[in-house]
Amino acid sequence: MGTTQLESVPEPKYWHLRTVLSEALDSEFSVGEILPNERDLAARFGVARATLRQALEQLELEGRLQRRRGVGTTVAPPRVGVAVGTGQHAWPGTDDDAWEPADCDLAAPPASVADALGTGREEPVHTVRRSRVSQGRPVAAELLYVPPAAVPGLTAIDAPSGPARARAVLRELQHGTLERRESAVELGSAGADDAKEFDRLPGAPVLVVTTRYLAEGRTAALSVATYRADTCRLTFGDSGDVEIHDGPQTRAS
Amino acid sequence: MGTTQLESVPEPKYWHLRTVLSEALDSEFSVGEILPNERDLAARFGVARATLRQALEQLELEGRLQRRRGVGTTVAPPRVGVAVGTGQHAWPGTDDDAWEPADCDLAAPPASVADALGTGREEPVHTVRRSRVSQGRPVAAELLYVPPAAVPGLTAIDAPSGPARARAVLRELQHGTLERRESAVELGSAGADDAKEFDRLPGAPVLVVTTRYLAEGRTAALSVATYRADTCRLTFGDSGDVEIHDGPQTRAS
Repeated sequence: MGTTQLESVPEPKYWHLRTVLSEALDSEFSVGEILPNERDLAARFGVARATLRQALEQLELEGRLQRRRGVGTTVAPPRVGVAVGTGQHAWPGTDDDAWEPADCDLAAPPASVADALGTGREEPVHTVRRSRVSQGRPVAAELLYVPPAAVPGLTAIDAPSGPARARAVLRELQHGTLERRESAVELGSAGADDAKEFDRLPGAPVLVVTTRYLAEGRTAALSVATYRADTCRLTFGDSGDVEIHDGPQTRAS
Repeated sequence: MGTTQLESVPEPKYWHLRTVLSEALDSEFSVGEILPNERDLAARFGVARATLRQALEQLELEGRLQRRRGVGTTVAPPRVGVAVGTGQHAWPGTDDDAWEPADCDLAAPPASVADALGTGREEPVHTVRRSRVSQGRPVAAELLYVPPAAVPGLTAIDAPSGPARARAVLRELQHGTLERRESAVELGSAGADDAKEFDRLPGAPVLVVTTRYLAEGRTAALSVATYRADTCRLTFGDSGDVEIHDGPQTRAS
C-alpha cells in the first residue's frame, strides 16, 4: 500500500481516501487478508482517524471490507448472488425453494402487516419463520405472515408448533390458486433477532424484500425477508446472475 | 416526545434509543417536521451525543429520517415505489420507459464492465447516461454500456453527442432481438457524480441495480443504475407495488 500523503482536493477527504484505498485493495491485498490497524493506516495516509473510519465505512457499505469483532478489518470476498425473482408464480415452500422453515406461531402481526393483509389489527395470523443459508452461512431471515382464512384446512392438522407446523401452513397455503406475486426491495437495518442470526450488531444494513402473494383477489400471504447487505447481491431474471466483480461502485468517481 | 430516562437494557443503547425514537416519530411527529437539535434530544433522553447520533443514523438508513445540510433532521415522507422489474422482455428506451436520456459518449468502460460485456479492456463502448425523476426529484441515475457490435447501424446517424445521440443508440439497440434480461440489486455508495445529482454527500447509501440485456447469445447492453436508498423502494412484479407504511423495520425488535 502506498504512503503518498493526500493532496488537498475539492471532493471530501474521506471520499478521496476511499478511492485510494479501493485501488490499494485491488492491487495489493487478497480476499480474507487483515488490514493494518486504524492507527497505522491513518498515519500512513496522513489523515485523521475519523477520516479513515469514514472511508472504511464506505468500503464496508460497498461490500469491499468486512469489520468483525475480535478479528479486525478484512478484505471481503465477492458478494454471493442470491436468486429472488425466479418462479414468479410459485407459492413459498414449493419444490426448489431455498428457505428452511424454523418455527411457526399464531399471533397479532405488526400493524403495518395487518393493514397490508387486510386483517384486523388484533387478529392473530400464522407467522412462519424461515431462514436461508448460502455457502454454509445464514444470509437471510424471513417472516411469512399467513391469515387463517388463507389456510382453511389447517386446524385439523396435529402439529402445534416448530418446523412441522411451519411446513403444514406452507402445504395448506399451496392448495389455493396463486394469481400473482409482487415484490419490493428497500434498504433497512437489522433488528435484534436478525442481527443475532447474522452475527452482526443490531442496525447492520440489510436489504428488505417484501413479497405479497395474491390469491382470489386478496393477499393470501405476506413475506418480509431480510438479507445481509454486506454479503448478498439479490438476483432477478431467468438464470439469476450478473457478474460484476468490482462490486457496485462501477461508476467513475 | 417523552422525557423518560433510558433504563439499562441488554441490547445496545443506541438500538434501544432507536426504538424509542421510532415510536415517538409515529405518535408525535408529522412528515417534514424538523426534530429538536442533537444537544436537546440527547439531554432529554439522558444519552451521550454519540449514542444519539448512532440512533439517528439507524433511522436514516430505515428511511424514517432525512438529514439535510442547512435544514437539520426532518421526518421523511414514505419511500416512493419505483418499478424496476416490469417488461422483462423490453429493451431500454421503449415506450413506457421512465428514463430520460441525457448524454452519450464513446469511451473505454471500467474493467469490470468490459469483462461483463466481453469486450477488450481498452475497447471503447457507447455510454448512455440517463436519469429518472419521480415526483419532481431525481431518484436514479444510469450508465448504459452498449458495445458498437450491438448497434451496427449507428455510424450512419448524424448526432455526435447529447440526448439525440443517446436516443439514436437506444433506437439502434432495439433493432436486435432481446432474448432475456437479468438483474441484480445490491447496496452501494453514491459516487461523486451521483451524489451531486441527488443533492447528497458522496458515499450516501444507494441501491445499485445491474441489468444485463442478452441478444444472440451475447450481452448487447449492460445497465448500472443507482437509486437513492433514502427515498426509493424498488418494486418488482405485475402491478409493482407493495405498501408497507411503517418502513422496512417490520420485524419485532
